[in-house]
Amino acid sequence: MSKTHTRPRVVIVGAGFAGLECARALRGSNANVVVIDRRNHHLFQPLLYQVATAALSPSSVAAPIRKVFRRQRNCSVLMGEVESIDTQAGFVGIDERQEPFDYLVLACGMTHNYFGNEQWQAVAPGLKNIEEAIEIRRRVLMSFELAELEPDERARRSLLTFVIVGGGPTGVELAGAIAEIATQSIPRDFRRVDTRQTRVVLVEGGDRLLAAYHPELSSRAERDLVALGVEVLLGDRVSEIDEAGVTVGKADGATRIESRCVIWAAGLKGEPLASSLNIELTSDGRVAVEADLSVPGHDRIFVVGDLMAHEDPKSGEPVPGVAQGAMQSGRFVGRIIASELEGRPSGERGAFHYHDKGSMATIGRAKAVAEIGSWRFGGLFAWMLWSIVHVAFLVGFRNKLIAMFQWAYLYTFWSRGSRLITGTCTTGKGDALG
Amino acid sequence: MSKTHTRPRVVIVGAGFAGLECARALRGSNANVVVIDRRNHHLFQPLLYQVATAALSPSSVAAPIRKVFRRQRNCSVLMGEVESIDTQAGFVGIDERQEPFDYLVLACGMTHNYFGNEQWQAVAPGLKNIEEAIEIRRRVLMSFELAELEPDERARRSLLTFVIVGGGPTGVELAGAIAEIATQSIPRDFRRVDTRQTRVVLVEGGDRLLAAYHPELSSRAERDLVALGVEVLLGDRVSEIDEAGVTVGKADGATRIESRCVIWAAGLKGEPLASSLNIELTSDGRVAVEADLSVPGHDRIFVVGDLMAHEDPKSGEPVPGVAQGAMQSGRFVGRIIASELEGRPSGERGAFHYHDKGSMATIGRAKAVAEIGSWRFGGLFAWMLWSIVHVAFLVGFRNKLIAMFQWAYLYTFWSRGSRLITGTCTTGKGDALG
Repeated sequence: MSKTHTRPRVVIVGAGFAGLECARALRGSNANVVVIDRRNHHLFQPLLYQVATAALSPSSVAAPIRKVFRRQRNCSVLMGEVESIDTQAGFVGIDERQEPFDYLVLACGMTHNYFGNEQWQAVAPGLKNIEEAIEIRRRVLMSFELAELEPDERARRSLLTFVIVGGGPTGVELAGAIAEIATQSIPRDFRRVDTRQTRVVLVEGGDRLLAAYHPELSSRAERDLVALGVEVLLGDRVSEIDEAGVTVGKADGATRIESRCVIWAAGLKGEPLASSLNIELTSDGRVAVEADLSVPGHDRIFVVGDLMAHEDPKSGEPVPGVAQGAMQSGRFVGRIIASELEGRPSGERGAFHYHDKGSMATIGRAKAVAEIGSWRFGGLFAWMLWSIVHVAFLVGFRNKLIAMFQWAYLYTFWSRGSRLITGTCTTGKGDALG
Repeated sequence: MSKTHTRPRVVIVGAGFAGLECARALRGSNANVVVIDRRNHHLFQPLLYQVATAALSPSSVAAPIRKVFRRQRNCSVLMGEVESIDTQAGFVGIDERQEPFDYLVLACGMTHNYFGNEQWQAVAPGLKNIEEAIEIRRRVLMSFELAELEPDERARRSLLTFVIVGGGPTGVELAGAIAEIATQSIPRDFRRVDTRQTRVVLVEGGDRLLAAYHPELSSRAERDLVALGVEVLLGDRVSEIDEAGVTVGKADGATRIESRCVIWAAGLKGEPLASSLNIELTSDGRVAVEADLSVPGHDRIFVVGDLMAHEDPKSGEPVPGVAQGAMQSGRFVGRIIASELEGRPSGERGAFHYHDKGSMATIGRAKAVAEIGSWRFGGLFAWMLWSIVHVAFLVGFRNKLIAMFQWAYLYTFWSRGSRLITGTCTTGKGDALG
């Protein structure tokens, strides 16, 4: 690569946990770091479900990327969508512009995977960004509004039925939160309809919830959800989703659940940009990286975070798609680049090891599950730990304070502070009421 | 009106200040109160410009209407758009449904008035609801993002030029806030562009800002804005707005201002629903009411808030379209209805008198103007008073706390907490970057 930069250019695509940590690790280096994201904000994904369920306002879980890097003078931020990668000439294409790189770090994450049923996206949105969270919040709150107006009993029941597809952390957290809205936050706000009769159905194709956790925690989460009134369907696959509901079924017969609000939390695949690398991707569109997280055949192009497919050489386990894995891999690559810019030969990179610091998922007020090493527990203590860890990692001091305040209020008064229905209605009758 | 209600039905259309106060005044009466609004939230309009300028999050200035009336058991809330009024049979039409009324109170306010140039709406949005505030915030923040990417000097200048049309309180507050964003909140976040070179132009057709205030305060506001770097054009009328900018001119010649972000704060007209009354409206689409705020010829239909056109019989002055006028008129009508339901004859209604408790507008940090009776003042004290009064009237205890916290943070660190660009891009180049 022969370019006329005065300082080597490190382009990082994506300002999630992985991209942020990578750029931070290059602070103080002589690199010219360019962070490119299609949005102006870093999103704290683990709390996004709380925006979708009206507990937190969108700005509490987002931090302007520019502000994050305000003091890192060797880092500039570009808002734009990277559409192509020229691995030979060393450019990424944004719009009509080209941004040259000496090192490229892809940290652009995952998008929803509807496994060939892309038409389901319109009726069953997923939860990966602020717009989707606001749309899900709109649909959930709108269902209660429409139920209040609906004279027909069957139609009202279908408006008060929520189906969440996918029993991972996002599905579990959404199901618990919607059940709490219906039974705790809003019953006294409605005059005609009894929101406590709301049905929340969580559909999981596997044989247990939270498949990535120890089975003990899966049972605990299931018990806690059932106590909140959630119906948990295990081993059930969704065969059809349309505006009127969901068809789920085992091999021996299908069941129809009438619902006007279906949420997709069942699968993810790598961002399509990965295909610009012109190498073979995994079946879910991710990049199988080398031990040093570089792309096979391109030692100055790395993939970090959820988009990388990587088995830890020690444990043989795949690195999970969680914030910790993203942060650690981003930091690892940032340090490699920093030391090579100081002259270390690329043969000395070493291999990435993932340190599992534990996993947590929350189910409701004072209900969560956690595992740290071989230590597994649930209940109030897990929930307090979950709260502390999530606030501690929330980017931006101001966001931490606001989130804590909103939670204190929510958990004391069951009062959800962001019950806003905004945006254009996209489903059925809602159009007239937007 | 012969209906088979057990209790008389009072339908209130619109849950702004006027509608809310009217419904509250009926608490404890034997009326069956139905509040209908096309949105699920009451909006605290006086602070909406702070959402548009990223200082407050949308949920801080909005309160769910259902929650406001949670404890008022004789009040139910319907989310829906009233499309027609049958004044004879006593029904309002929502969608395919009909809601009967014994008393009807129209409190649906005003919408933007482009004075026949409706095509300007797409390029110069106004500020009346949350969606519009988010759209203006998106455009303002996006202009800086695009400027950072723009290599062409002239195009960059047009991206860094903001034009606000209309020198009333909203226009003054927006202009001051955008100037503060550019000079205080974000300069260190950008690497290529100097946001302090931003041009903010406030165009007012009349000969002074804040025409409804005393001329002394108009001069004070103008001085304060100029000190913040705002260009104030007085006696200039806008003759054209398009995607590339604004043409302003006096009779003796027109000037072109190239700008990619124009905001309309120049005029309002009554909500179109008023035409369903089948009476002659004022030139700006409002309803000229009787002394008791009833509609001529319909003694059980009232108009309150901004939608009413009414001259105070004592002062001969028109009641201004401000929160105080809305609240007082709503309360006045609520009390009339409550006492008639207790048997008072309708001949004893009396006439509505507006009590002017004072007016205020804020220009920037520690800068505001206020008048209370014949007492006029500006500066830090006016600004503190403005802050206290606005927080005190903000609906919902939680909103008050959050807003105070967000302000404390903003005014201490110049840090705007809601710098989120969300939603679909609707203008030019933004499309590629949304």
